Amino acid sequence: MTGATALARFHSLAHLSGEEIRALLDLARRLERQPEPRALAGRILGLLFFNPSLRTLASMQSAMARLGGSSIVLQPGQGTWKLETRAGVVMDGEASEHVREAIPVLAGYVDALGIRAFAGGGDLAADLSDAGFAGMAELFPGPTINLESAIDHPCQALGDWKTLDDLGVPESGRFVLAWANHPKALPLAVPAAVLGMAAARGMEVTVLSPEPYRLPAPVIARARAAAGGCGGSVRETSDRAEALAGARVIYAKSWASPLHYGDAAAETELRRGLAGWCVDDDWFAAADPACRFLHCLPVRRNVVVADSVLDSPRSAVVAQAHNRLWAQMAVLHQLLGGSR
Amino acid sequence: MTGATALARFHSLAHLSGEEIRALLDLARRLERQPEPRALAGRILGLLFFNPSLRTLASMQSAMARLGGSSIVLQPGQGTWKLETRAGVVMDGEASEHVREAIPVLAGYVDALGIRAFAGGGDLAADLSDAGFAGMAELFPGPTINLESAIDHPCQALGDWKTLDDLGVPESGRFVLAWANHPKALPLAVPAAVLGMAAARGMEVTVLSPEPYRLPAPVIARARAAAGGCGGSVRETSDRAEALAGARVIYAKSWASPLHYGDAAAETELRRGLAGWCVDDDWFAAADPACRFLHCLPVRRNVVVADSVLDSPRSAVVAQAHNRLWAQMAVLHQLLGGSR
Amino acid sequence: MTGATALARFHSLAHLSGEEIRALLDLARRLERQPEPRALAGRILGLLFFNPSLRTLASMQSAMARLGGSSIVLQPGQGTWKLETRAGVVMDGEASEHVREAIPVLAGYVDALGIRAFAGGGDLAADLSDAGFAGMAELFPGPTINLESAIDHPCQALGDWKTLDDLGVPESGRFVLAWANHPKALPLAVPAAVLGMAAARGMEVTVLSPEPYRLPAPVIARARAAAGGCGGSVRETSDRAEALAGARVIYAKSWASPLHYGDAAAETELRRGLAGWCVDDDWFAAADPACRFLHCLPVRRNVVVADSVLDSPRSAVVAQAHNRLWAQMAVLHQLLGGSR
Repeated sequence: MTGATALARFHSLAHLSGEEIRALLDLARRLERQPEPRALAGRILGLLFFNPSLRTLASMQSAMARLGGSSIVLQPGQGTWKLETRAGVVMDGEASEHVREAIPVLAGYVDALGIRAFAGGGDLAADLSDAGFAGMAELFPGPTINLESAIDHPCQALGDWKTLDDLGVPESGRFVLAWANHPKALPLAVPAAVLGMAAARGMEVTVLSPEPYRLPAPVIARARAAAGGCGGSVRETSDRAEALAGARVIYAKSWASPLHYGDAAAETELRRGLAGWCVDDDWFAAADPACRFLHCLPVRRNVVVADSVLDSPRSAVVAQAHNRLWAQMAVLHQLLGGSR
Repeated sequence: MTGATALARFHSLAHLSGEEIRALLDLARRLERQPEPRALAGRILGLLFFNPSLRTLASMQSAMARLGGSSIVLQPGQGTWKLETRAGVVMDGEASEHVREAIPVLAGYVDALGIRAFAGGGDLAADLSDAGFAGMAELFPGPTINLESAIDHPCQALGDWKTLDDLGVPESGRFVLAWANHPKALPLAVPAAVLGMAAARGMEVTVLSPEPYRLPAPVIARARAAAGGCGGSVRETSDRAEALAGARVIYAKSWASPLHYGDAAAETELRRGLAGWCVDDDWFAAADPACRFLHCLPVRRNVVVADSVLDSPRSAVVAQAHNRLWAQMAVLHQLLGGSR
Repeated sequence: MTGATALARFHSLAHLSGEEIRALLDLARRLERQPEPRALAGRILGLLFFNPSLRTLASMQSAMARLGGSSIVLQPGQGTWKLETRAGVVMDGEASEHVREAIPVLAGYVDALGIRAFAGGGDLAADLSDAGFAGMAELFPGPTINLESAIDHPCQALGDWKTLDDLGVPESGRFVLAWANHPKALPLAVPAAVLGMAAARGMEVTVLSPEPYRLPAPVIARARAAAGGCGGSVRETSDRAEALAGARVIYAKSWASPLHYGDAAAETELRRGLAGWCVDDDWFAAADPACRFLHCLPVRRNVVVADSVLDSPRSAVVAQAHNRLWAQMAVLHQLLGGSR
C-alpha cells in the first residue's frame, strides 16, 4: 500500500487520519481494477453477528473469498450459544457462554474477527461510549473489525466515501443527512458514522431532522472535530427547504430520538404526524440538479423513501452497497498483511 | 462442452432444446468421471433460500467447492433481513428490505445467484405463471439458477434425467408420475418439472392421481408440448391398476389439489380416505419387473411410500440426490464459463 | 504419520489404543508447528449439527480451511428440514425427512461427515448405548466423526489430552473430575469422555460429586478398563476435601443425575442446596500448588465456576478450546488421507 502503515484494527474512521483513509480508498480502487486472488490465501476471518445482516454478511464473505481467504460465520442464538456480555453476572439465565471465553476461544481458530454488536438501545450514554463493542474487541488479540456497533459503522462510512468519489461529488459539496420516518426506533450508528465521514471529507454538512430527532451533542461535536482540519462544516436544522437548497447529496436515514431513548411507546407517539418525512421527488426541487440520493440499506420503500426516488437515476444506494466490498477488501488486505 | 452454446441462465428445462439438455448431461457425466477442481477457481455463487433445504443447499455448495469456487448462503428471516417481494407496497410491516435492493446488491458480491422461491401457495394462476421467481431473477444482471420456484425445479429434473440414463431406463419406457398422500399441501413445482422432463425425454408418461388431484391443464399442456417432437406422450388417469401395468418407473410425489389451492381445511377434508395412496410393494405387482421407484426427497416414510419400497433395491432415491451434484456442476460450469 | 494406521472413523477414544492416540497427538503437534495448507485440498467435510455449538462448529471449519479443504454446515430445523431418526415410524409429524435418506444423500456431496447428536436425555440405557449416534454414523459409507454424542465427545477428550501434555501435567498426576451446579440437566457425554481420557492417560482419577450425581456404573467401568493397562486408577467420592487434596487438575463439569434421568422437576428439586458446587478459590487450597482448572466450555460463570478462578492463571479453558483445532486437524488428516 502506498506509504500507509498497516492497520492493527478497524473500529472507526475517527481513529484514522485523512491520509490513512485516502490510502485505504486508493487500495480499494486498486483492488477493484486489479484483482489479487491470492493475497489472503489461507487466512480465515471470523464473523460474529449479534444482529441480522445481508450486505455486511455477504460482502465480508465475498471480500475474503475474492482475496483467496475464507470466513466462518457465527450467530449467537442461531446455531450457536447465546452469549453473555455483562461483567460479573451469575449466569443462570438464557446465555450459555460469556464473550470473555467465546472471543478468546475464536482467536485460536481465525486470523481476524469482525463483530456486529449493534446498540443496546436502552442507555444512551452507554451506547455513545461504544463500550459494548470495544469491550468485546479487546478480548481478541488479533485484528478486529467493527461491523456496526452502537455508535459507529466504519465499513459503511468508508464505502460511502468511495461512492462519493466515484460519483464525482466535490469534496466541498453540500451534504444533507436527512432523518426519515420508520416503523422502528433505529440505532444511531449509521447517522453518526456517515456524519463523521462527510465532515472528514471536508463537506458542507447539514443534519436535517424534526426537532426531537436532533442527534446527541457528542455526535455533533465529534463530527465538527473531524471537519476541523479539512475545511468541512456541520450544522443542524429542522427547516427542510433551507437544508435542501443546493444539496449535492441527500443521505436519508432514520434514527431513534435521543429524548426518549429506549422508550418505544414515547417514540411511537413522537412519530405521529411525521409520515411526511419520507423522501420523495419534491425534496430534490431546490437541490443541485446533480443531487444524488444515498441510503445505507436496508431501506423501507415508501416509508423512508418513495419508489420514484429509489428507482430513479438519482439513487446511488446499490453503488454504495457494492463499494462496501472494495472498501472492506482494502481493510482486510491491510489488517491481514495482504500488502506484505 | 461439445458443441453447445453457453447458458445465460438456468430457469427451466422447458427453455432448452433436447440437444442442449443432452449436452448438459454429457458434461455432467464428464465431470463425474474426470474432476475439474480448478474450473471455477475464484468464482462465487450466491444462494438465496426463502425456504428450507437439505439437498439443494448442500449439493450447490459441494458443486462449487468441487469446481474450485465458493458459495455464500443467505436465508431471509434467519440471520438476514426478511425480504419484501411485492411491488409498490408501503413497507411498514415485518420485511426490512425489498428484493429490488437486495438482489442488485448481491450482484456486486457474487458471480451467479441461485434462488429458491417456492410457491406462494394461495393463487394458482400466479404460481403457474412463476412470476415470483422470474421477477426476482430479472433483478440480477448475471447468471441465475432456479433452485425451485412455484412451478419448476430444473436442477431436480436434470438430475433425474441423468438417473434414468444411469439406470438404463429406455427413453421410450413407461413412466408413471404417481400422486401420494402427505400431511401437507405441497407445491406443484416438482411434479410439473419431472413431468416435463419425462415427456421431453420421449417417455410414455402417465400421471396417476385421485380425481381431485389432476394437475392443472397448463402443466399438462406444457408437458405434451415437450413430448411433441420426441415421440413421448402424456396421459392422465385415476385408475391405479391401469396406470401401473408395465411401468418402468414409478415416480411418487404429493401435491396440493388445484381445486382448493391455498385452502388448507378443504385440502385436509379432501385427503380423508386417501391414506391408501402410499406407495407399497403392491404397486409394483403388475409393473415391469425392472421397475424402479423414484422420489425427489425429502420423503415422509410410511405416508408417501412404505419402508419396504424405500429400503428395497427398487429405490433409486439416493442415486437421484447424488445426481443433483453432477447435474448442477454441469450447469454451473456452463453458466460461469468453466468451459471457456 | 509415524507408524499409525489410518483411521476409518473417529467415534470414541475408547476405540483406539494408547499408541494410536499418542500418534494422533504427535500429528496434532506437528501440524501446530508446521502447517500443511494443501493437505486436504479439494476435500469437503459435512457438519450435521442437531444441537448448537460454538467451538465445535468454528474449530471444525477452521481445521478444514487450515488444511486447504472446505466445510458444509447443516442444522436440521434451521434452514434445513427437521430430521426423523426413529425406525419404522409413520412420518406424519414435524420431521420432513428421515436420516436414512438424509445421511446417504450427503455421502454424495461430502468426503467425511461430522455429526453432533447429543443425548436424548430421557432414556439412560439408550443414551449409554450411544445407539442414536452409532445408527446415524452407520448410514454414511465414508469416514465419520463424533462431534458429541449421547455418551462421548472424543474431539474434546483428544484436545484435552494434548492440553494436559502442553501444560506438563504428569501422566501419573491426580486428576479430579468435579461435578458442578448448573441451571439445566446436562448430558453425560463430556464427563464420560474426559474420565475415559484421563484414565487412559494413566492418571490417578477421582470423580467428585454429590451422592445423587454418581456417574452410571457402566461409565465408571469403561474408564477403569481404560485405566487398566496403563497404570491409571478411577475412584469416586462425595468428600470434597479428600478429593481435592494434592489435585494436579480440577476438571469441572455439570451433568444430570442418573437417578432422575429425564425428570426435570426431580432434577431441580435435587439441586436445591447444591449452589455451593461452584468451583471457587477455596477448592484449590489443599491442591497441588501447580493445580490447573479445566472445563470444556461453554461455562456458566459464577454458577459452575467463579470469575476469580476463570480469570486466574490457573484456568486453562481457552488453551483447551484452542487444542480442539490441532486435535481435529490430526483426526481429519488421518481420516481424509492427508498423510497419504
